[in-house]
Amino acid sequence: MSFSPILEKDVVTWTDKKDVLVVGFGGAGACSAIEAFDNGASVAIFEAASESGGSTKLSSAELYLGGGTTVQKAVGYDDSVEDVYGYLMDSNGPQADAAKVRAYAEGGAAHLDWLMALGVPFKMSEYPQRAMMALTDDCLLYTGSEKAWPYVDKYKHAPRGHNLYVEGDNGGPLFVKIITEAVEQRDIDIHIEARALRLIVDAFGPEQRVVGLVVREDMQERYYRANKGVILCAGGFVMNAEMMQQYAPELAKAGTVPIGNPNDTGGGIQMGLSVGARAINMHEGFLSVPFYPPATLTHGIFVNGQGQRFINEDAYHGRIGCYLVRQTYPVYLVLNVEDYADYETASWLAAPVAGTGETVAELAEELRLPDSGLIDTINTYNLAAQSGNDEQFHKSKEWLKPLTGPFVALDCTPGAGAFLPHFTLGGLDTTVDGQVLSVQGDVISGLYAAGRTACGVPRRGDGYASGSSVGDATFSGRRAGRQAAIA
Amino acid sequence: MSFSPILEKDVVTWTDKKDVLVVGFGGAGACSAIEAFDNGASVAIFEAASESGGSTKLSSAELYLGGGTTVQKAVGYDDSVEDVYGYLMDSNGPQADAAKVRAYAEGGAAHLDWLMALGVPFKMSEYPQRAMMALTDDCLLYTGSEKAWPYVDKYKHAPRGHNLYVEGDNGGPLFVKIITEAVEQRDIDIHIEARALRLIVDAFGPEQRVVGLVVREDMQERYYRANKGVILCAGGFVMNAEMMQQYAPELAKAGTVPIGNPNDTGGGIQMGLSVGARAINMHEGFLSVPFYPPATLTHGIFVNGQGQRFINEDAYHGRIGCYLVRQTYPVYLVLNVEDYADYETASWLAAPVAGTGETVAELAEELRLPDSGLIDTINTYNLAAQSGNDEQFHKSKEWLKPLTGPFVALDCTPGAGAFLPHFTLGGLDTTVDGQVLSVQGDVISGLYAAGRTACGVPRRGDGYASGSSVGDATFSGRRAGRQAAIA
Repeated sequence: MSFSPILEKDVVTWTDKKDVLVVGFGGAGACSAIEAFDNGASVAIFEAASESGGSTKLSSAELYLGGGTTVQKAVGYDDSVEDVYGYLMDSNGPQADAAKVRAYAEGGAAHLDWLMALGVPFKMSEYPQRAMMALTDDCLLYTGSEKAWPYVDKYKHAPRGHNLYVEGDNGGPLFVKIITEAVEQRDIDIHIEARALRLIVDAFGPEQRVVGLVVREDMQERYYRANKGVILCAGGFVMNAEMMQQYAPELAKAGTVPIGNPNDTGGGIQMGLSVGARAINMHEGFLSVPFYPPATLTHGIFVNGQGQRFINEDAYHGRIGCYLVRQTYPVYLVLNVEDYADYETASWLAAPVAGTGETVAELAEELRLPDSGLIDTINTYNLAAQSGNDEQFHKSKEWLKPLTGPFVALDCTPGAGAFLPHFTLGGLDTTVDGQVLSVQGDVISGLYAAGRTACGVPRRGDGYASGSSVGDATFSGRRAGRQAAIA
Repeated sequence: MSFSPILEKDVVTWTDKKDVLVVGFGGAGACSAIEAFDNGASVAIFEAASESGGSTKLSSAELYLGGGTTVQKAVGYDDSVEDVYGYLMDSNGPQADAAKVRAYAEGGAAHLDWLMALGVPFKMSEYPQRAMMALTDDCLLYTGSEKAWPYVDKYKHAPRGHNLYVEGDNGGPLFVKIITEAVEQRDIDIHIEARALRLIVDAFGPEQRVVGLVVREDMQERYYRANKGVILCAGGFVMNAEMMQQYAPELAKAGTVPIGNPNDTGGGIQMGLSVGARAINMHEGFLSVPFYPPATLTHGIFVNGQGQRFINEDAYHGRIGCYLVRQTYPVYLVLNVEDYADYETASWLAAPVAGTGETVAELAEELRLPDSGLIDTINTYNLAAQSGNDEQFHKSKEWLKPLTGPFVALDCTPGAGAFLPHFTLGGLDTTVDGQVLSVQGDVISGLYAAGRTACGVPRRGDGYASGSSVGDATFSGRRAGRQAAIA
């Protein structure tokens, strides 16, 4: 049985013994290892791939942090812990974990400083456009739905996405280079091309303690002892088709594209489950319709197979993505041709043009939508745009603009060609300090998890904000590392 | 740690030894016990409550069965296994379990005959009205969305809800009386007020086998050995607030009402988890807006906070309920006063009247809806009703009728007073024969589950059909009982 634990007494030879063993050398694993070491532990880190980075390296490494970070203050934003807390609790809905959100809101500013002290560079500047990520080397931008309904009037907003001081979408490699160097500068044993296979426990059953790790490296199975703990930072499971079908079948079959690194196969979650850990929120995922830039597309409206609008189009792309997949298909983004702008070169979306028309009726016919639906929808929207008050969907005045034609409609239906990515938001249930909880709700001695192997702060696709994953992974990694070291 | 397993070697005295021990004396447990016994096993059954029945007794005990049952044939319906299979696979969406659906479609007719042979009475008749359940002693009725879009043109439809031969909503007690007698007539040990606490295993770890059960009865903990297996038929977890928050937070916080028996506290699922079982689909649930009868309410339209329709109102009430909770609130059912009919006495819904009006504008104002939204929606709907073609939502012609006023609107917003019930559809992952699967996907020796302790045929609230729970519970219970006996 793959991933099943083995008993300590069955280990013939220990290859090495350390206080803390970290599985996975991405953002979470690197920060775990650093904190464990800096808190006095001897540490080894194991990475299945041939280099560090995991999904963090593939990302833009935006960090969603607030409550008055150094950059926020330098740029002149007065963000508060309570506004971060309120927004994250609300946007993570029924699944929100108050303890984790509280720690993240309170510790966000210090976390950024910690990263800066490691050498991660941030320009004291803002990228003021609506975009999925900063396209310059500027730092701060809005990466959630803070300025959009239903949040805008409930919590004071501030930009909390922190983009690295590097041009274009190149934050991930730079971030990983710096945290990798920070690991290398410490006396931490680094094992590359070393795949964790099983946990080692001192006993099976309720009294078990996790005491080590079986690793495959150099074509052999090796046995490493963990005097204090094993920290699972092995990513999520979006690349494991069998686990996706078991635990997240709606996401698996949404017709969207899994994103992550090839080792996001759930090995960390499986090792946790194999010793009785509890997995939660396993069905949930991030699911995006990455339609901006160009920001001008926000002047358009999304319509479903009934020709209805279904969301305020100035919301975060991931919120819109989650609403999109609940609609009756097809789903189109309808806009004035003049707002099409530099869509073909600037957009990640790559949705094909589904129809055009000088009039709404002409467009409706090309789209094969119920024409009364689309006509009513556009008439109502135009009245809202003219009055500056979208009483149906509460799109902000800034983005309201009459749809007067000529029109173009982009086909955003899953499977029709647009790039609609997804990844998982479920994982092992842990305490705020990364201790893995059993199915009975007890701490499993010696076992920790962080990053997407755990279920952390971001828990809902429709409430997601960019920068939540690298933010949460590095933050939760640090907490787990410290806890394991001082345990 | 509650529910943790104990070791066989730590058992000092066995109170009794049987081949098969069944936990829970509801529909699933009774049928498990009967089949296990009839296949040669010695059997004991344990029920925490002071009488048999579980949630089956509280239900109407409709059975969703098709493929040419004795009653379907007698009434003149030519239902096929393939149409049952196609409909159930489609309506259970990405979560559908092909092996379980196949077995259920192929075995449905024989299952009804088996129940009839036990003495469960069915009249060879049909209840032709649209209703949540038959209100007479007639048998067959449509209890899903078979005649509604998107299924109606894809699978040949037939009524598959089988109502017992008893007046009114009294199927549950009668059904339980008969299956209880069937258990009593066999040499099966019945333990009432006996709460299963823990499983007993021969070893902890990957080589474990489930060999018994710890039961609290007569104020003592007693130890029962299972030579062949333990079958968990202890219901779902809708009454366990902590589990609901962990595993089904959206359902828990939907503002709807949990329904089930007080012992639906997830004990069976917890016992399974405690020996390494895999739980799946834990977030999902049935969630109903029980608005018919009176069937005339189907002439109305549901509108959301944008004043939009969002579903074909001739769909099954549970499908509508699941769509309802995804809307921006409030949600109203708008109808002509003449269709209000005997709503106050006939309906389970008990939604308060939110507004009335001679005109749509008057109604929109009372409802505080964006009036252009509601006016457009009703205009579009009326055009569809006049033409007999609802091209937006595909409500069948039979239920299309112009909304001409005077109007009444019922407030169906969760929390606003309407009765909107929910229960869980997640549970232990099992083979089609009820063998519980581990987190690694292996069969856990000696452990079985059925009914809502397992994840069975019904897996989506928006695809649910009434009669699926008692149908699946009794069907899966039988399969588990037989498998345990012949193992």
